[in-house]
Parts: sequence; C-alpha cells; structure tokens
Amino acid sequence: MRAQGTVTAQDVVAARQAIADVVRHTPVLPSPSLSERCGAPVVLKAETLQRTGAFKLRGALAKLHALGDACAAGVVCGSAGNHAQGVAAAARARGVRCEVHMPAEAPLAKVEATVALGAEVVVDGETVEECVARAQERAAATGMAFVHPFDDPEVVAGQGTLGLELLEDVPSLARVLVPVGGGGLASGVAIAVKSARPEVEVVGVQVDANAPFPASLRAGAPVEVAGGMTIADGIAVKRPGGLTLELVREWVDDVVVVGEEEVAEAMVHLLERDKLVVEGAGAVGVAALLAGRVQAADAGMTCVVLSGGNVDAGLLATVARRHETEAGRRLVVLVRVPDRPGGLVGLLDCVAQQGANLVDVQHLREGLDLHVRETAVQLVLETRGRDHAEAVLQAVAAAGWTPRLMA
Amino acid sequence: MRAQGTVTAQDVVAARQAIADVVRHTPVLPSPSLSERCGAPVVLKAETLQRTGAFKLRGALAKLHALGDACAAGVVCGSAGNHAQGVAAAARARGVRCEVHMPAEAPLAKVEATVALGAEVVVDGETVEECVARAQERAAATGMAFVHPFDDPEVVAGQGTLGLELLEDVPSLARVLVPVGGGGLASGVAIAVKSARPEVEVVGVQVDANAPFPASLRAGAPVEVAGGMTIADGIAVKRPGGLTLELVREWVDDVVVVGEEEVAEAMVHLLERDKLVVEGAGAVGVAALLAGRVQAADAGMTCVVLSGGNVDAGLLATVARRHETEAGRRLVVLVRVPDRPGGLVGLLDCVAQQGANLVDVQHLREGLDLHVRETAVQLVLETRGRDHAEAVLQAVAAAGWTPRLMA
Repeated sequence: MRAQGTVTAQDVVAARQAIADVVRHTPVLPSPSLSERCGAPVVLKAETLQRTGAFKLRGALAKLHALGDACAAGVVCGSAGNHAQGVAAAARARGVRCEVHMPAEAPLAKVEATVALGAEVVVDGETVEECVARAQERAAATGMAFVHPFDDPEVVAGQGTLGLELLEDVPSLARVLVPVGGGGLASGVAIAVKSARPEVEVVGVQVDANAPFPASLRAGAPVEVAGGMTIADGIAVKRPGGLTLELVREWVDDVVVVGEEEVAEAMVHLLERDKLVVEGAGAVGVAALLAGRVQAADAGMTCVVLSGGNVDAGLLATVARRHETEAGRRLVVLVRVPDRPGGLVGLLDCVAQQGANLVDVQHLREGLDLHVRETAVQLVLETRGRDHAEAVLQAVAAAGWTPRLMA
Repeated sequence: MRAQGTVTAQDVVAARQAIADVVRHTPVLPSPSLSERCGAPVVLKAETLQRTGAFKLRGALAKLHALGDACAAGVVCGSAGNHAQGVAAAARARGVRCEVHMPAEAPLAKVEATVALGAEVVVDGETVEECVARAQERAAATGMAFVHPFDDPEVVAGQGTLGLELLEDVPSLARVLVPVGGGGLASGVAIAVKSARPEVEVVGVQVDANAPFPASLRAGAPVEVAGGMTIADGIAVKRPGGLTLELVREWVDDVVVVGEEEVAEAMVHLLERDKLVVEGAGAVGVAALLAGRVQAADAGMTCVVLSGGNVDAGLLATVARRHETEAGRRLVVLVRVPDRPGGLVGLLDCVAQQGANLVDVQHLREGLDLHVRETAVQLVLETRGRDHAEAVLQAVAAAGWTPRLMA
C-alpha cells in the first residue's frame, strides 16, 4: 500500500503490470496532415483503439487490482459514459459485479455499450455529479466498492500507464497534449512522462463549456464552474478533484481551453484526414493545435492523446454534415420563382447544368416578403466545394434569379 | 528484370525493400465486436492508416522503382481516387511529375487530396475506364510513363507487401479477407501469404454492383459486367485485368460478393464499434463477415483487410444517419391532428413526456386523405433505440392519435 494522496512513477509502473493482461498497448500514428499544418512533426496516440474505446479501462483495472478482496461484493460508479464502460469491462475481466449510475442525457452509444459489457445500468440523475453521489451512497449502503472517475491515486496511476507507452513509442517526444476533464489522465500521463524525461512538456486541454482548471489553479483550490452542454461530454466535469488539482498543479505545464466549434472542426479533421473516429473529448488536443492555442514543439515530436472514440453515429453525422456546409460542399439557397407551371424547371435546369446535385427542394409561400404571383424555393445542393458553389450561385444569378445563401 | 506476366514471392520481397522508406507498416488491430459476432478471433489490417489513406501507394511506389529512369518525364494514370492519390504521393516522393485523369463523378475527398499531393488533375471522363484510356494516350503522346491501377506485375508485387506484414504481425493467421476491384491487392496478398504459408485461405470480396470476377473465373477469361453506382466506388471495376485474373485464379481461394446495404452496415459497424473510418470498398470484407458470406476460421486468426479510408464527410454523414433510422434511434412519424389552435401542442407534449427529442416538425396538408379540419404532421424524433421508439409510438397511440411510422 502507498501513502494516500500522492502518485509516483513507481505507482504507474506497478499499475501497468497489474493491468497488462487486459489493456491494449495502443498505437501511435503519424499525422501528415497535422504535421504539415503545424510545420513540425505531430503524432497521434490512438487511445480510441483501446478496449471500450477510451483510456478509462486503465484506471478502472488499476483500482480493482488495488481493491483486491475489497471489491468482492462488486463495484459501483457514476459516469456519463467512458468511465462506466471502463469500470464495467474491468469488473467483467476480474469477475466482479458492476453497477453503474448514468445521467439521463448520457449518449446512447455509451449506455448501450455499458449494458453490453454486463453492467447493471441505473439511469437516475440529471448530471454526472448526481450520479457519482448516488454511486457513493449505494457503496455505503451495499458494501460494493466505489470507483471514482478521477480523484483517486490508483485511478491516476492506471491512467498514467498511457504515458509509459509514449516514452517507449515516441523516442523524440518533446510535447504532449492531453484532454482534461477531472484531470486523472493528464496528471497520470505527466507523472509517467516527466518523471523519466522532465524536459518533455505536458499541456492539458479543456473545453470552454467546462473549464474549471485554469481558475482552480489560480485559486489554489477546486473552483466549480456552472458547466454547460458540450460536444466534449466526456470531459464535462465542473469541478477538479482535490488530488488531481494538486497533481496537475505539480506536474502539468499548462492548461489551455478550446471552444465548441474548434472541437467539431477537429473531429471532422480526424475523420477525413486521419481516418479515426474520435469523440469530442478526445479531439480537444487536435482542436488546440488547429486553433493555434498550442504550438507544435520546435524540436522533437509533438504527441496528441486521442483519449476516446465513443460517439453516436447520429452525432458524427451531424458534425460531418455541418462541415460539408461550411466547406461549401452543401449549399442551402433561397430563390424566388414565378408561381406558375414551369416556374421551377428553369431554375433546376440551371443548377443541373452546373453539375450541382439537388438534395432537397421546398416551396416556401409564407413568412417572406413575396409578390402574390411569386413563391420562394429553398434548394439544398451538393457541390464540389467552395469554388464550385460560387460558380453555381453566379450561374443562377446570371440567368436572372436572385439567389440568397442561407447556409 | 523479371519475366512479364508473372509475380513471385521474391518479387514482393524485392518490392518491399524498394518502397520501405515511404510506405507505412500499418497496424493490425483486434476487433472484439467482430470476434464476438463471429464466435472466433478476428483482427483488422488497418491499411486505412496508410499514407494517402489506402494501399495503392504500395503498388505505385513499386512501379516507379521498376520504371527507374523510364519515368523521368513523369507518370500518368487514370483513377477515381485511391490509385490517383497513390501515384501522386509516389511521384512526389520520387520527385517526378504526375498527371492524373479522373472521372467527373470521383468523390470530392479524393480529387482534393490528389491535388494536395501535387498532381495535375484532369477531370475528363465519364468512367474510370475512359480515364485510364485517356492516360494511356497521354503516355504515348508525351513520353510520360503510364501506371496501370492493377494489371501490371510491378503493381501487384507492390500491393503484395501488405501480405508480408500480415505474415509478421499475425502468427496464427488462418484466413484473410481482401477487397477485389481489379484484383491487384488480392492477388499480391495471396502470393505473399500463400507462398510462405499455403494453408492460409485468401478470400476475395467484390460488391455486387461491380462483380466481374466470379463470371470471369468461370469463363477463364475477363468478362465485362455493366457496372453500376456503388458505395464501394474504390472497387468499381467492370472487367478484370488479364494478368490479375490469372493470378487470382491461381492464388486466391474464393471470391464472394456482398450487397450495397451490407457494405453500408459494415461501414457503420467499423465507425461505431472499431472507431475506424473505412470507405465502402475497404469495408467489403467486414460486410462479408457480418452478412455470413464468409465465416471466420474455426482455428486460428481471421484477418480482414481494410484497404482504404478515403470517404467524403458527406457520405459518412448519410450512412451514419440512415443507420440511426434503422436502429430505431431516429423516427419519422406521420400523425393526423385537428387543424385548429393547439392541435399540435398535445402531441408534442406527449412525445416530450416520453423523453424523445424533437428534431423536425412539418405540416402536410395536401396529397393525403385528410378531413378538411385535419392536418397531418410529420415528426422527426430522436429516441434511445428501438425499445424507446416503440414506447413513444405506444404512448402517442394511447393518447388517442394514430401514428404512422414512415421510417
């Protein structure tokens, strides 16, 4: 047993041995597109390819190992998703019962996956914090062992095992970007990496809808923020843990903050360019690079930790679709046409001549300032990109219509 | 120089040496979800993570090496995408000029990526075949070297290098599933794998919109099929090459065929469960497993080659969205409501009470058999899955409406 309240590199090494039979050593992948964009070499730690789709399995297994017989009656936790899956998979691997409290708003993919891993899922809170509190009550009442999502030295040591893999796989490592929710992964990775190579910089990244760390670090104590809806739900933590705040203060070089749009852009970049499915929380490091919040290291390798890939197909579809619109590949145009037979034909013909694909057409007759003999038509078009979209709009205008770009 | 018209394992080994400085050794990843579904261990060869997002770089580099000084004036090819990017990247790596002829319908992501790799792209054909013919003409006219997408022994040897990686990375390899378009990858991989381990089965997978191999193998000569639109555009080849047909006949154990829906389902499975972006052509092997066209090996490891990941965000969005509908997570319901103030409120309230999220609502007053005082409302709802969707529909019915499920 170690002293409570501190985590050392030795703890991380010990954790690694305890979890090695279940945890996957995930690959580090070069990213030519990010390297080009940053003007310096960038690699991606694809922890999205971890069992359960996120790093949380590491900490959960380490905790169960430390608990030993103390979790014979089972384990219980509260989580919006990744921690739930991590604890469920760890419990299944070690043959103990698992109960998970999840908020009503937890993403579907995560709820279903947790059930599929054999856990008993109870949806009984509005927020993750409520679910964690409920899990603690259940632990006290039932004798099951409570597994905190981050504020626990064993959990931190488990997450830190990812850092040991970086030391082995990225010899010229100079800078590491790590998502920060509760701070367990960031502090664990920083302890593992910087104990061996103190000169490597470890930068944490939060999402601005839930970014209590900068203020908490300034205050020297956990500060709670209001919290808000975010595409990075996996790191939507309103208040740092007492332990993790201390460890982040001691070990992590800096914590930066990115916005929602930047996270969405990073997710699409990872999908299209790096062929990886990364959830919002897992993409904040790439968002920080793309938005210029963090620079790639001048010398040596920059490594971005993609901490998880558990995202609903529906959310992926929404993000990808919006990107199409932003890239000019999907065009929503409002055009007035005469409200008489054939009024639409000429317009559609003009669009077709330009090689744009018609996705949807809708007549709008109300709520617009139209002549009684006019109707407005909203076209949704697919184009080959911004230049092509521009050419389509010009052709429509040249043929006598007045197109109004809606998106 | 080797004899024309045959490819040996030695050629593949030689090709590997010639291309090793540029080509990435891509990872083999376990797939717990496919293993569970198949009842036997399945791994994925993530060639989607190859530079340019597909295996084509291997063959292109091998061809350029073989050409040597003969490509000093540049190289030219015709392709709908992946071969284009492979040749462009190979040419850039070797410092030679590259001209690519692409059909008008080539996916956007592939056209843009080819341009970004420094190639001169000419969009000048309706079909890939026309573009290949045009490239051959240009080669004859200009002295540039023509690079065939598959029917070339050097190209086959290059693609076969992927098989050497499988031999190293999957010691218990028993069965390999490989996508088949022109047959270059499948024959190269089969030659590499089966020369060393003849007992390993190599199964090719075509998509039914473009599946000339089964008939060609029966006929003993290339048979051309009509060809059709397919989500697996990367393997939309209407006619096998003379060389590749012969090699597939000699080396590949079987060629099976999958359908469009099966490919789409495989793409979503890979996105959601394996966190990998795989284009349709790259997903046919997984489609074959999921649809039961090929079984996983009884003993030893089954490896599915994911040959490419170059897919537009828009197509990904479409595929993911449709899957949401199929999984009952997205519901389109038509309901008649009284056409008077407040007619819609009760319905929406009922839906909200059930925890379904309202995505879209539309009034339909025409084209349906409605009473003059009625209107039909089409709701698009997000639910937590099939059971939840069913509960929502029942609650709507119990409250006195008659919901009609549209999708």
